[in-house]
Amino acid sequence: MKTFQEMSRQELEEQRSKLTAAFEEIRAEGLKLDMSRGKPAPEQLDTAMPLMDVLNSESVLQTESGVDCRNYGIMDGIPEVKRLMADMLDTKPENVIVDGNASLSLMFDAVSHSVTHGVCGSTPWCKLDKVKFLCPAPGYDRHFKVTEYFGIEMITIPMTENGPDMDLVEKYVKEDASVKGIWCVPKYSNPQGYTYSDETVRRFAALEPAAEDFRIYWDNAYCIHDLYEDKSDELLEIFTECEKAGHPDLVFEFASTSKISFAGAGISAVASSARNLDWFKKVMTVQTIGPDKVNQLRHARYFKNKEGLKAQMMKNSALIRPKFELVLGMLKEELDGLGIGRWTNPVGGYFISFDAMEGCAKAIVAKCKEGGMVLTGAGATYPYGVDPKDSNIRIAPSYPSLAEMKEATKLFILCVKLVSIEKLLEGAE
Amino acid sequence: MKTFQEMSRQELEEQRSKLTAAFEEIRAEGLKLDMSRGKPAPEQLDTAMPLMDVLNSESVLQTESGVDCRNYGIMDGIPEVKRLMADMLDTKPENVIVDGNASLSLMFDAVSHSVTHGVCGSTPWCKLDKVKFLCPAPGYDRHFKVTEYFGIEMITIPMTENGPDMDLVEKYVKEDASVKGIWCVPKYSNPQGYTYSDETVRRFAALEPAAEDFRIYWDNAYCIHDLYEDKSDELLEIFTECEKAGHPDLVFEFASTSKISFAGAGISAVASSARNLDWFKKVMTVQTIGPDKVNQLRHARYFKNKEGLKAQMMKNSALIRPKFELVLGMLKEELDGLGIGRWTNPVGGYFISFDAMEGCAKAIVAKCKEGGMVLTGAGATYPYGVDPKDSNIRIAPSYPSLAEMKEATKLFILCVKLVSIEKLLEGAE
Repeated sequence: MKTFQEMSRQELEEQRSKLTAAFEEIRAEGLKLDMSRGKPAPEQLDTAMPLMDVLNSESVLQTESGVDCRNYGIMDGIPEVKRLMADMLDTKPENVIVDGNASLSLMFDAVSHSVTHGVCGSTPWCKLDKVKFLCPAPGYDRHFKVTEYFGIEMITIPMTENGPDMDLVEKYVKEDASVKGIWCVPKYSNPQGYTYSDETVRRFAALEPAAEDFRIYWDNAYCIHDLYEDKSDELLEIFTECEKAGHPDLVFEFASTSKISFAGAGISAVASSARNLDWFKKVMTVQTIGPDKVNQLRHARYFKNKEGLKAQMMKNSALIRPKFELVLGMLKEELDGLGIGRWTNPVGGYFISFDAMEGCAKAIVAKCKEGGMVLTGAGATYPYGVDPKDSNIRIAPSYPSLAEMKEATKLFILCVKLVSIEKLLEGAE
Repeated sequence: MKTFQEMSRQELEEQRSKLTAAFEEIRAEGLKLDMSRGKPAPEQLDTAMPLMDVLNSESVLQTESGVDCRNYGIMDGIPEVKRLMADMLDTKPENVIVDGNASLSLMFDAVSHSVTHGVCGSTPWCKLDKVKFLCPAPGYDRHFKVTEYFGIEMITIPMTENGPDMDLVEKYVKEDASVKGIWCVPKYSNPQGYTYSDETVRRFAALEPAAEDFRIYWDNAYCIHDLYEDKSDELLEIFTECEKAGHPDLVFEFASTSKISFAGAGISAVASSARNLDWFKKVMTVQTIGPDKVNQLRHARYFKNKEGLKAQMMKNSALIRPKFELVLGMLKEELDGLGIGRWTNPVGGYFISFDAMEGCAKAIVAKCKEGGMVLTGAGATYPYGVDPKDSNIRIAPSYPSLAEMKEATKLFILCVKLVSIEKLLEGAE
């Protein structure tokens, strides 16, 4: 089989007219697909519905320590839910704060408080001329939005299959005291689905930052989000490694049940050292009267422990897995060997990362939109929304039905081919 | 009847030994009472338990507009809950954002975003040499903590029965461009239970601030928290007055169902002009994936409208009212005419404000603690926790049972008398 690059102008033009006809056919169908966000499908959410029956008006809405969840009190999470989230993260309940429904808010708050008040007593970032964050990319657009919002300079760090380029990370962190943080999605990374290797995790734990207020923002969003029961990535537990390296305060870890129970009504957590959590709690006493404890109780009683959470995830993955396999199968079938795209084959998480030929991502996303499908904006996976190679596209297969997913992938493949041909013909002119 | 001031040294000493004996008797009982916060009593929370049955696993968890509450999406509140909260505040749904369980977090965020990014495009407060807030006092300690946290200078404004001293407010706001806000609890104020008069509200709406980014932080925490069905204070609706005065952007109004449904698991709201809410939402898109929509749906379906909320409040007030009446009756019976204390007689809200003789509040609170009862720290009702006259004490009658309340008030009265006598004897030395 020839790659597109090996084809003659005439061959490319023939392909184009065939593909254009197929594209017009799809466009005529008037599709309305949205693959822009990593949203759970309704069927996934259905599997968590028993959660709604855990508590009712006959329930005693008290924590195991006897606190009335309906009333004020307890700022950092009820005991049983701290245990649940600690279990999920393989850490200790005393190292966890459990909050409301969005871990993004916890991340925002961590940065916001650092900007206004500094980290554990260091100079507030708003008093500094320059604050920088390292941003492994492609990465999660919401992370980048938070740092961009606070005017923090973002430095792109290339991602590899083993995690961020650690030579570069170590260099920046060690040499530049204005580097205050790094955004990480260490397991089933967004969007590539890569899991940091043991060596990467150890090198993170061993970092010797120039800045005392440097922290790793370890967004373990997909910690138990495996697609298969019999094959899954394993991530080293970061705090254990930090302890070994003598750096107990280096990491803020974040997680939530957004993709376990309900994306719109789950619970979130931040895990860290006693010193870091004291800092967090000091702010929280000013900021809030505490999280929704009734919803925490609901989650704690329903899931009980990590096994309960994992059992729920297996129900979820049974629904997502076929969609991943469908997309990956079609990509392989239709694009393999053509030289116009590479993609990842994750065994967990919510995304597939697709790298088109350089300079093609925006045009592919636009073409898909023309055909009736919204994708995550090209560039969104890079700081400032600018992918220097205009190549990366995030595919989020979870939300559409299997039938829609088939249509969507067909359209996507068509658009990749068409845009690549245009690009090659342009280049040949 | 003689006032304490009119008594001879001998009379005071006689009183003291009688009162000391009574105090020791109570102390021996080993009371453990907590009147430090305005917490709903368990019986109040019980009245809201039907809320727990509104949704179950058979429910269709969709908004009236068809959005799945279990999933991501909708940042500013589902339509039916915006209507509910707007109804409660006598304003329009489009002027309301409904959030999670704590209006305090919304207030914190409003200030925090102003500090880091400025108000609707004005200079971020962190870039200014001086930012000041007016603080009507006695007031709500949590308000003062927020401004203190951000290093904002707090200026005490004396409270009157009609609200803050408006001559002073107008002067500061008009003349000092570093004055950026004022904390208000306009109805059944915390702790005095005063409701701002129509004139006060109109003068607020008519303020002509020197600072374009001055806002009124209108914490309408007790908007429908009447103790009686047949007598209640009426507060003029502030936005209507602002419109009339041509100042649509002057006010952020806050409210929650913390003291209507569950203190730990309710919903909160901020109401304001389209311009101010656009500013708020711009931040929220970075900060959060949205509030817990399932709990919003639960509240919207259960309460339906203002009538539903008011019906719930009547169940609540039936439980709180006897406690207020007990305290007020005992204070009148035991302290009226003695010249050692004045107190307010609110018909709503959560507090009674007590003014002891100057220089006695701290000693009374300490004496109560000795006797087994925790009160809100003396001074907490003033900026920086310092009551210049050391006179104001906040009484929170909602949480203890009626029997406990009787014990508590007996102890409180004893302590007021004892400390006052000590003070008078000291002065006479």
